[in-house]
Amino acid sequence: MEKREQLYEGKAKRIYRTSSENQYWVEYKDEATAFNGEKKATITGKGELNNRITAIFFTMLKERGIDNHFIRLLSPTEQLVKRVEIIPLEVVVRNIAAGSLAKRLGMEEGTVLPQPVVEFYYKDDALGDPLVNPSHINILGIASEEDQARLEKLGLAVNEVLQAYLQERNILLVDFKLEFGRTPDGEILLADEISPDTCRFWDARTKVKLDKDRFRRDLGGVEEAYQEMLKRLGGEAHV
Amino acid sequence: MEKREQLYEGKAKRIYRTSSENQYWVEYKDEATAFNGEKKATITGKGELNNRITAIFFTMLKERGIDNHFIRLLSPTEQLVKRVEIIPLEVVVRNIAAGSLAKRLGMEEGTVLPQPVVEFYYKDDALGDPLVNPSHINILGIASEEDQARLEKLGLAVNEVLQAYLQERNILLVDFKLEFGRTPDGEILLADEISPDTCRFWDARTKVKLDKDRFRRDLGGVEEAYQEMLKRLGGEAHV
Repeated sequence: MEKREQLYEGKAKRIYRTSSENQYWVEYKDEATAFNGEKKATITGKGELNNRITAIFFTMLKERGIDNHFIRLLSPTEQLVKRVEIIPLEVVVRNIAAGSLAKRLGMEEGTVLPQPVVEFYYKDDALGDPLVNPSHINILGIASEEDQARLEKLGLAVNEVLQAYLQERNILLVDFKLEFGRTPDGEILLADEISPDTCRFWDARTKVKLDKDRFRRDLGGVEEAYQEMLKRLGGEAHV
Repeated sequence: MEKREQLYEGKAKRIYRTSSENQYWVEYKDEATAFNGEKKATITGKGELNNRITAIFFTMLKERGIDNHFIRLLSPTEQLVKRVEIIPLEVVVRNIAAGSLAKRLGMEEGTVLPQPVVEFYYKDDALGDPLVNPSHINILGIASEEDQARLEKLGLAVNEVLQAYLQERNILLVDFKLEFGRTPDGEILLADEISPDTCRFWDARTKVKLDKDRFRRDLGGVEEAYQEMLKRLGGEAHV
């Protein structure tokens, strides 16, 4: 497998073409951003930790019947994935009120929701990734109503599997963000990453945060929290 | 019909009980607010204009099969309506991009939408009336999925009737906000008002605004615009 030219650089990852037309090379970066890029920092080891954590989650999800773009790790900070075209929607699933949901609906952070909440955000940095409803998605023309139903169903399926898996590791899955892509065949496939950058994880007993909120809210111990997550998932980093 | 104690005072109306258990007395005020109450003013004659305009729209809608709470005018600034309990959702229907939709999706104001957009906002001043999606409404417990579908269908039905009616009067219906209530029998009924306070109306030829945006954006001629609307609807005020 050969790495070719860079296709895209996001806030946390770089994507490269490879010698195989249908495979992309993903490099996880140590850079962290929050609040739509307003807050920036480098978190030593984050690239490796998120690369490894994502690999564990995606492998586990595939074993449990939820296909995704992950193929294999290439190095501590790199992984090989299937080529997809990302659908510009962030699919957020929430079990416990936190962050923007707590603010939007005036709920106290930590309130257990009576049922999972699914939200779609339009991936557009210039617009600040706004919340969109089915009607907005229709006029944006980025996902048919059938595709929206599929994304919601997949989001809820990932939630069930992840929640159960994390519960065994004494972690509460508060909420998380997924991205999906379309394969060259038009199939919708789970893509991007699942990591402390894209999820809220709380220790089930102490409610200590083991995710990016430590960075967003200047709580300290960011790297240690990501390390703890990897450890609980049975992984090992050499950062 | 006798006016009894005040039940509620909103930004633009006061609601009173009457001697009839199932009827309310509505008084339209001259006060205008915008941006969730941050901007305030008194617009002479607005109470009468909106009372009359709402009466015309609600009478017309009823004639065309869309039942609503309106019973009859009581005075230039007052009307009698059926008693309902307002569902705390603002149902917004849009035909042309303007206001928060233009901002949310990065569309130029005036862009004709390929199909009407329906949005729900949670009526809560303290939260700034946030946009909510079906999943949020479910956990708020304010409207079942069946009720949400009914509200959307009614919103689109009002849109069709209003759009056709206004087109004959050389007015573009850009967007509008509806509120619905539940009757003591549990029936969902169109309520509140339909006026230049709650709609965007543009002259079809010149695109001149004939609505509250004249107040929001300090364009001047607010009262004259409301007067013009009433005139085009065939009504007459004695302000």
